[in-house]
Amino acid sequence: MNKKYFTVGPTELFPEVAEMYRGAAAEGFFSVSHRSKEFEEILEATVNSVTTLLDVPDDFYVFFLSSATECMERIIENTVERKSFHFVNGYFAQRFYDIASQLKKEPEFVKTEFGKGFDLANTVIPADSELICITHNETSTGAALPLEGIYGIKKEHPDKLVALDIVTSVPYYKIDFTYIDIAFFSVQKGFGLPPGLGVMFVRKSVLEKTKDMQSKGINIGTYNNFIKLAANADKWQTTMTPNIPAIYLLGKVSDLIIEKGVEAMRTETEKKANLIYNFFDKHDTIKPFVKDKELRSKTTITLETELDTAKIFEKIEYNGFVLSQGYGDYKGKHIRIGNFPVHRQEDVSNLIYLFRKF
Amino acid sequence: MNKKYFTVGPTELFPEVAEMYRGAAAEGFFSVSHRSKEFEEILEATVNSVTTLLDVPDDFYVFFLSSATECMERIIENTVERKSFHFVNGYFAQRFYDIASQLKKEPEFVKTEFGKGFDLANTVIPADSELICITHNETSTGAALPLEGIYGIKKEHPDKLVALDIVTSVPYYKIDFTYIDIAFFSVQKGFGLPPGLGVMFVRKSVLEKTKDMQSKGINIGTYNNFIKLAANADKWQTTMTPNIPAIYLLGKVSDLIIEKGVEAMRTETEKKANLIYNFFDKHDTIKPFVKDKELRSKTTITLETELDTAKIFEKIEYNGFVLSQGYGDYKGKHIRIGNFPVHRQEDVSNLIYLFRKF
Repeated sequence: MNKKYFTVGPTELFPEVAEMYRGAAAEGFFSVSHRSKEFEEILEATVNSVTTLLDVPDDFYVFFLSSATECMERIIENTVERKSFHFVNGYFAQRFYDIASQLKKEPEFVKTEFGKGFDLANTVIPADSELICITHNETSTGAALPLEGIYGIKKEHPDKLVALDIVTSVPYYKIDFTYIDIAFFSVQKGFGLPPGLGVMFVRKSVLEKTKDMQSKGINIGTYNNFIKLAANADKWQTTMTPNIPAIYLLGKVSDLIIEKGVEAMRTETEKKANLIYNFFDKHDTIKPFVKDKELRSKTTITLETELDTAKIFEKIEYNGFVLSQGYGDYKGKHIRIGNFPVHRQEDVSNLIYLFRKF
Repeated sequence: MNKKYFTVGPTELFPEVAEMYRGAAAEGFFSVSHRSKEFEEILEATVNSVTTLLDVPDDFYVFFLSSATECMERIIENTVERKSFHFVNGYFAQRFYDIASQLKKEPEFVKTEFGKGFDLANTVIPADSELICITHNETSTGAALPLEGIYGIKKEHPDKLVALDIVTSVPYYKIDFTYIDIAFFSVQKGFGLPPGLGVMFVRKSVLEKTKDMQSKGINIGTYNNFIKLAANADKWQTTMTPNIPAIYLLGKVSDLIIEKGVEAMRTETEKKANLIYNFFDKHDTIKPFVKDKELRSKTTITLETELDTAKIFEKIEYNGFVLSQGYGDYKGKHIRIGNFPVHRQEDVSNLIYLFRKF
């Protein structure tokens, strides 16, 4: 027991989480009405902590949903009348496209080999695209797109909305929200929390599009459409009874990360990532999947091998570490390592030592 | 500190919850992948516990969603091509209707004064209704419809689907699933858990309707459509990374209720409800809102008064008890008391003693 989860999410919990939960349960925080002053205070505190940690400007709403997948669905429902455009270089970008298609929109996409990047500056985006969807850090492949390139897309297309999947990016990657209209993450990745909460930042002006769609009689969804989400966010409330423990814990863990020092966390993340990449770059049989060093994710490190991955996972787990399998067709071919603020450098060294030993 | 939440949900937690959470976090249960064998075991255990406790037959799927409100949205999306029919005698039944309307369906309804019942046997239901939506226990008013009358509707209309809102009904009320196609609840009511999970039971044959709608090109939603939910449920998995703590705790609390004795729980719920209703029937200024004794909910007891409710809540809370406000337009006019398995008879007596004293 007491395994260490170096998984890409769900992942290791901050050790403080269980005691935070116990304390809050004892205080009655998880029994309060979601329409009460007490809950509004919890929500406001969490919004303040998260937006401080991630430097989210004031002209963004913070919406609490149940998962990043729900975020994708609500984004398409509330901002796309007909056409979204998707940069697809992994399974999660693909999911965003599929959701648009399932919602009977007419999405288009540009696709590259998984694990590779795009010529972001020269990609032709159809003029009638209403929303451009980009996955910053592809958890399925370990490829992270350059943020400057992503910002360039908004600069080039100021008339279109840009939605950015930052599920496994934050809090390590610093997002400049000037060039993003919508971004979303889930808490079981970089925040070291149990799953069950998706968090979405939506520029307030995006609501004009949603209202226009509503006035045209387009289905924008029901209780979690942007108009209802915004009206409730304005009161520090939610559209339905939410996952109160997760909202509470997200605020507390954000405070914890701020307290420990955001810059220190960033420096440490880079150190740990370098340790891992440097080791596997020199490894005989297990190599980083992403070849372009500029595209290598610092938070979700993906390795490829022709060895029997089941045996590797077994050996590693026997020694107290859990890693993530390859995603989709990469199952049996990839090993993925989560490198989030919760993961300590000492344990990364121990993990590398295990690989060295085998 | 240590207030007792006699609220209609979120409500008091089972005192065991915090320790269950701590133990599971330490065991790594909240860090496991939702595609892992470990998670499948957690999910299977919860499904077994809940279906045992609530006597849900084998030909029902158990779906885990984020809230009862999401259940309403997914039900309409997946079973209604054009017309649902709604029995509306409170705000939650109204919400179900509104959701159908927001999804661009053409719902119809029969409405009675809130807090009253229906002539269930003689209500004319349009022949082209595909789904009949009934709220068994209206949390907003404290009126519970007679279950036999609800079953009669399915007997009368075997060709139509029946969806039953049992949000605050279970586990006290025993539902006979023979006459129900879909039912749903949320865990922050009768299960004494924090909010963040909706649970839905769907008769397997309902999927034929969903598949037919899909083949016609109708929007049945995306990641949480019934087809995806069913395919994952068949593998003891979920469609997205779910609220794993809530799924885990629901299983454990179901086991706890079974262990303490389901019949004893039912007898005690009735005793507590009788204590409350008998006291307020004789009270001068605070009276049960539901006049028809047959319709009075055993789990969500609603009182009406012309006194200043804010003062009453304040006095009661000063003495360590939290009660629920009136819902919607009833705010300031009603007091609602939750009477769930988590609430002890001794505390009910203390609460009544407080009202007697004032």
